[in-house]
Amino acid sequence: MTKKKVEIVEIGPRDGFQNVPEFIPTELKLQAIDGIIRSGVKRVQITSFVNPKAIPQMKDAKEVATICLEKYPGINFFALVPNLCGAQVAVECGLKEISYVISVSETHNLKNVKRSHDESFSGLSEIIKLYPNIIINLDVATAFGCHYEGDIPIEKIMTFLKRGYDMGIRSFNICDTVGLAYPLLVKEVIENVLKEFPDCEFEIHIHDTRNMGIINSYTAIECGINKIQTSIAGLGGCPFAPGASGNTSTEDLVYMLNKMGYETEIDFEVLLKTAKLLKEKINGDFSGHHIFINKNNVCNQ
Amino acid sequence: MTKKKVEIVEIGPRDGFQNVPEFIPTELKLQAIDGIIRSGVKRVQITSFVNPKAIPQMKDAKEVATICLEKYPGINFFALVPNLCGAQVAVECGLKEISYVISVSETHNLKNVKRSHDESFSGLSEIIKLYPNIIINLDVATAFGCHYEGDIPIEKIMTFLKRGYDMGIRSFNICDTVGLAYPLLVKEVIENVLKEFPDCEFEIHIHDTRNMGIINSYTAIECGINKIQTSIAGLGGCPFAPGASGNTSTEDLVYMLNKMGYETEIDFEVLLKTAKLLKEKINGDFSGHHIFINKNNVCNQ
Repeated sequence: MTKKKVEIVEIGPRDGFQNVPEFIPTELKLQAIDGIIRSGVKRVQITSFVNPKAIPQMKDAKEVATICLEKYPGINFFALVPNLCGAQVAVECGLKEISYVISVSETHNLKNVKRSHDESFSGLSEIIKLYPNIIINLDVATAFGCHYEGDIPIEKIMTFLKRGYDMGIRSFNICDTVGLAYPLLVKEVIENVLKEFPDCEFEIHIHDTRNMGIINSYTAIECGINKIQTSIAGLGGCPFAPGASGNTSTEDLVYMLNKMGYETEIDFEVLLKTAKLLKEKINGDFSGHHIFINKNNVCNQ
Repeated sequence: MTKKKVEIVEIGPRDGFQNVPEFIPTELKLQAIDGIIRSGVKRVQITSFVNPKAIPQMKDAKEVATICLEKYPGINFFALVPNLCGAQVAVECGLKEISYVISVSETHNLKNVKRSHDESFSGLSEIIKLYPNIIINLDVATAFGCHYEGDIPIEKIMTFLKRGYDMGIRSFNICDTVGLAYPLLVKEVIENVLKEFPDCEFEIHIHDTRNMGIINSYTAIECGINKIQTSIAGLGGCPFAPGASGNTSTEDLVYMLNKMGYETEIDFEVLLKTAKLLKEKINGDFSGHHIFINKNNVCNQ
């Protein structure tokens, strides 16, 4: 039996780091990225090119991207950009791939990037025109629900994707932005998008807010998604909600997938060492579990 | 379509409370149990009748059991007993059902209850003879692996269950004592035990140590188990491994099952309120996620 391949897409250096209030020294960021790559991860969301006044944590975005692109030529790096200006810097750094985020819930989009759908899609159109050779992943935010608009009907997601598709987008990242997904919903959404857009690439981006990070990610895999975004140590989410809001922990998912006979090509122990390093050095919110296990202290009954 | 029923078996008052170092006032224990019952839970592991010198947290076992049995006549209460002496007190309190634990890994059994398999089964035999009308659930500890003996072959679990079955046991609780289960293993074990012992009742007891509490519990449900042991707030496990070692959180599992169309007959909001009360009052290890969500603070991107 050939093993089923799952590609782990590490987004800790963006979504994880971005939610840490205190600035993480560039050197520590690079050390973590190095550990992630040494574990076998081949695709990393390296940073986001945003206004450093809005998100000071990402003020070293250019430096991090430039160094990594030079040091690891075989790795598939990409970065989040909120607008044309961000895309420009990303391209200047040498990135060949970017993520651009629009929320299916227009209310959330207005809160998150201060734009209407028309404005966001128009911004995307500009980037496509200016950089026709750059791969653009469309981050489909709030795909599984929104605190402002509630449930998102499947038809609305389809119309949203079609709008991106018609502009030339062939790579989508289906995001559970506020952690409202559950397995049955993941199944419904993923089966529909895969069926409707068979010539596109899909990734999934899950938050562990309601303790379904692992099961939702796994459900997506079972439905046919083979690129899963996760964050090392489960870092991310909101520092005011400890243990609750990070992305699915990379090492926890990798541990399970390796046990289940999936081919992740990732060395769990190397990854865990890096996750533990971050837990030790960063004052953040960690939703990973393995980082808390102390082998000398097995006291469950 | 009729909804599939899943019975939530709340074990927080035993496994959860037992792992809290500081004594929880009896009144708070009773308040938590009251909230659990008001949410709709009908089966509760109320306490354990152990030596109070070994586990001072359970020194009020008799009081808690007596009060609850009188106050909630419709609820299916049971308690953990390690030996004949514990069984005697449980019966005196009026309990009609007890749990007796033996580990499949004999090494773990020696460490946990200081007995060989022969000694443990002989103790079980005594209880059965003395109390023929009491329902005894056999807690099948380390069924999914053990830190001392490693993997547990499925044949070993079968032989173990058969030994209990031949003594008259018809109710088993398959326990992931140290959090080594993963969905594929859960499937293998559960499918085998259900097939081999079709006239028995089965429950499952999962720890969230490796972030698979929800997915393992759900896998068991999919395989045909309809009684799932969980702990309110995810309380339990080891206070030295924060966020890692508690049982699956009752409210997190209930939230998901209710969303998925399962009939738990439990009011999530009432349950969550009780879980939050415990988080507020107890200095313990909470692996539940919903208790950390602050509705005014939805800041994921």
